[in-house]
Amino acid sequence: MSYEDLALHTDKYQINMMYAHWKNGTHNGVRVFEAFFRKNPFKSGYAVFAGLERIIHYINHLQFKDEDIDYLRTQEEQYDEEFLAELRNFRFSGELYSVKEGTLVFPNEPLIRIKTRVFEAHLLETALLNFMNYQTLIATKAARIRHVAPDDQLMEFGTRRAQEADAAIWGARAAYIAGFNATSNMRAGKLFGIPTKGTHAHAWVQDFDTEEKAFESFAKTLPDQSILLVDTYNTLKSGVPNAIKVGLHMKEEGKSLRGIRLDSGDLAYLSIEARKMLDEAGLEDVVIVASNDLDDDVINDLKSQGAQITSWGIGTQLITASDQPALGGVYKVVAKYEDGEYVPTIKISSNVEKITTPGYKTVYRIINNKGKAEADYITMVGEKIPEKDLKLFDPVHTYKNKVVHSFKAEELLHPIYIEGKLVYDLPQLDEIREYHRAQLKLFWPQHLRRLKPQEYFVDLSEQVWETKNNLLEKHSL
Amino acid sequence: MSYEDLALHTDKYQINMMYAHWKNGTHNGVRVFEAFFRKNPFKSGYAVFAGLERIIHYINHLQFKDEDIDYLRTQEEQYDEEFLAELRNFRFSGELYSVKEGTLVFPNEPLIRIKTRVFEAHLLETALLNFMNYQTLIATKAARIRHVAPDDQLMEFGTRRAQEADAAIWGARAAYIAGFNATSNMRAGKLFGIPTKGTHAHAWVQDFDTEEKAFESFAKTLPDQSILLVDTYNTLKSGVPNAIKVGLHMKEEGKSLRGIRLDSGDLAYLSIEARKMLDEAGLEDVVIVASNDLDDDVINDLKSQGAQITSWGIGTQLITASDQPALGGVYKVVAKYEDGEYVPTIKISSNVEKITTPGYKTVYRIINNKGKAEADYITMVGEKIPEKDLKLFDPVHTYKNKVVHSFKAEELLHPIYIEGKLVYDLPQLDEIREYHRAQLKLFWPQHLRRLKPQEYFVDLSEQVWETKNNLLEKHSL
Repeated sequence: MSYEDLALHTDKYQINMMYAHWKNGTHNGVRVFEAFFRKNPFKSGYAVFAGLERIIHYINHLQFKDEDIDYLRTQEEQYDEEFLAELRNFRFSGELYSVKEGTLVFPNEPLIRIKTRVFEAHLLETALLNFMNYQTLIATKAARIRHVAPDDQLMEFGTRRAQEADAAIWGARAAYIAGFNATSNMRAGKLFGIPTKGTHAHAWVQDFDTEEKAFESFAKTLPDQSILLVDTYNTLKSGVPNAIKVGLHMKEEGKSLRGIRLDSGDLAYLSIEARKMLDEAGLEDVVIVASNDLDDDVINDLKSQGAQITSWGIGTQLITASDQPALGGVYKVVAKYEDGEYVPTIKISSNVEKITTPGYKTVYRIINNKGKAEADYITMVGEKIPEKDLKLFDPVHTYKNKVVHSFKAEELLHPIYIEGKLVYDLPQLDEIREYHRAQLKLFWPQHLRRLKPQEYFVDLSEQVWETKNNLLEKHSL
Repeated sequence: MSYEDLALHTDKYQINMMYAHWKNGTHNGVRVFEAFFRKNPFKSGYAVFAGLERIIHYINHLQFKDEDIDYLRTQEEQYDEEFLAELRNFRFSGELYSVKEGTLVFPNEPLIRIKTRVFEAHLLETALLNFMNYQTLIATKAARIRHVAPDDQLMEFGTRRAQEADAAIWGARAAYIAGFNATSNMRAGKLFGIPTKGTHAHAWVQDFDTEEKAFESFAKTLPDQSILLVDTYNTLKSGVPNAIKVGLHMKEEGKSLRGIRLDSGDLAYLSIEARKMLDEAGLEDVVIVASNDLDDDVINDLKSQGAQITSWGIGTQLITASDQPALGGVYKVVAKYEDGEYVPTIKISSNVEKITTPGYKTVYRIINNKGKAEADYITMVGEKIPEKDLKLFDPVHTYKNKVVHSFKAEELLHPIYIEGKLVYDLPQLDEIREYHRAQLKLFWPQHLRRLKPQEYFVDLSEQVWETKNNLLEKHSL
């Protein structure tokens, strides 16, 4: 895969702001930007941060090629040649801090913080949000599916319905981070080392004179992957009985049928009946796999009806996050670095939730002495946190407050680039997956439940809170 | 961009079926597959077909590299080395017919038809559906937005919320086909020649001591692209008055302010008030651009309230098709070619809408002597259509029928590959866009309206209808 040609994977206004800054002589001014989202997706109590590795590859390879510059020359802006030369030499030279992939994250806390020349900060915005938004969205959706089927096999089967090729692979990766077991996409398997799984299609069955012959032939070739699709003609009258015949043949030969797959009809009823038929035939080990527009709602509902399904192939609803197909992550300037000082900046809006929190900030997870997360706590960088008796208060309704007496504060933002140099050891995908699993254990179940979760608090230090209020007052008209 | 490494952009079950066919000695058998969808997206009366060019690039470059083969060697299937050698030599050798991009298409008609070795037909399925589904979905969504704003400027601004990088560019392309004027994505501009547009961000304004200075500086650098974002602090009290000051300065210098952009708040009210203020200042030519979670519903509603917006920047809702983020396009075997004959095959399902229509078929658009499309008409390939008095009947409720006396029949499927050779001259993107516009004129407005459109009929010839019914009867248990 080519990560190399993404310099133009940006919005035109970024290039135009870079140009205007360059013309204005202000392009080397250092600014601090933060990426964050304002609302959890899917009415979830949390999101699962993902996308960092993709962003790192992007930044590592971020440079304009001659053909990119040639393209920019064709634009009606008629960019100055010296500006284009400046682009040609573009390299990321700044600082980037980020939350680790797999971390549970919450609205309005910084997930990625960039401090660099405004010239660079603009260029990065679009791609960085694009990558963070999509993988975080899909990891969160996958976590919700894992939540309703904690012990089952979950397989990502969505490529044909994904929003183009990149979504298929990066979505498969995000799902794996959040606890999926496998993907059907072979490219994702190759690129990321995710286990790949597959069964067969209806077309396989239609290619034979009889369903039984089709099953027999498939199982003979791939006994270890023998999951037979039983709904081409009639699931209970034809598909399951034929699968049982094949399963019994395999047993005689010392092999074993792996499973059957249901892809239409009433999955609860059919799986219960199929389970009985398989068990009566002595094929208790044959797994029932289901597919067909599944998501966390449907799986939860099927389980409540006693469906005998322990393996799930999940496509469209996961890979597109169809109940909310975009995470609204944004990237906002929060401070200017001038004369050795950080000057906080704010954006006001008549949509109150769009007002930003100013300052060069970081965020800590406050973990109490039971090992549970109490809140996340945003401070200015370098601000001291008390060693005990930390007062937490709601930034809007300040009368809502509490004191945590004994705790440890874990900083969530980690250095990724310092002075343009990558300083982060990228973890293996399985480590990220393990880390995510450990993250879940930090939180009380009420924050993790799928419906009407209890809100987890992200609070501001007094210093941050006062900075915000002072700026709000200054700008009120 | 690299189209070259997509051989593994497929589901594992395709590889496994190829393997099982190869083991079984049946991999050279010729089959006919059709790609189609079962329901229009968004409750629309039609869809806009797109994705063919992407599919052609994919097929042209479709080959397994050594590293792909090495990856397959690591799989638990333990594929035979001879099979892997067969893959290494893989080339598409068959026939592919397709509807042209930009064509209005309808449920249950063949959009792409492939006749080739079953070995090849399986491999292609996943990528072909992935590309067709996404671009057709976005082109359809874009057409619905164009429908409510026939004379306005429509700009695709969605990259940061797109489902990864591919979606951003192919979505921009699909939107342009269906009548959008521009995209903000520079890579889409470079790759496809789509005009690119952009304004500036809030960060630009925040970077200056005053909003006025920020506007002044931007307009000085890029007078021809001077669209000023007026909602950083307060739209009507600060943003619009400052933009007016800058607009008047520009006028004095013989230049002109292009527009202002509203990105939050009550877009109807703000645009009406801003229009008045601009007009009173003598800036009648300054355009009002809006952005902020727009889609066809919102635009339609804003227009009904008299909003003074003539240029729209549309992001999330378009690029993710958020009201239905996947088109459920499928790819089904419809015939086997054996001993010089096409043997139709069917897939039965307890979900009636999942039953396929068998046979090696094509589809015609029946255009009456007023130049309007009456229905689409599916026949077997080679079947003669009467020159006049064509009887059309509903395939389910056959008592619903009518006779078209005088008509012409335009075949919608065009040869793209014959014996593995590309025989199609790819049209320029602007030609596709023109063709789409001409397509819209073929249809009565009642099929095109956005809400509760009248159903456009896709009918079967008697021969196709009988073939289907005979096979249904044969397989009923």
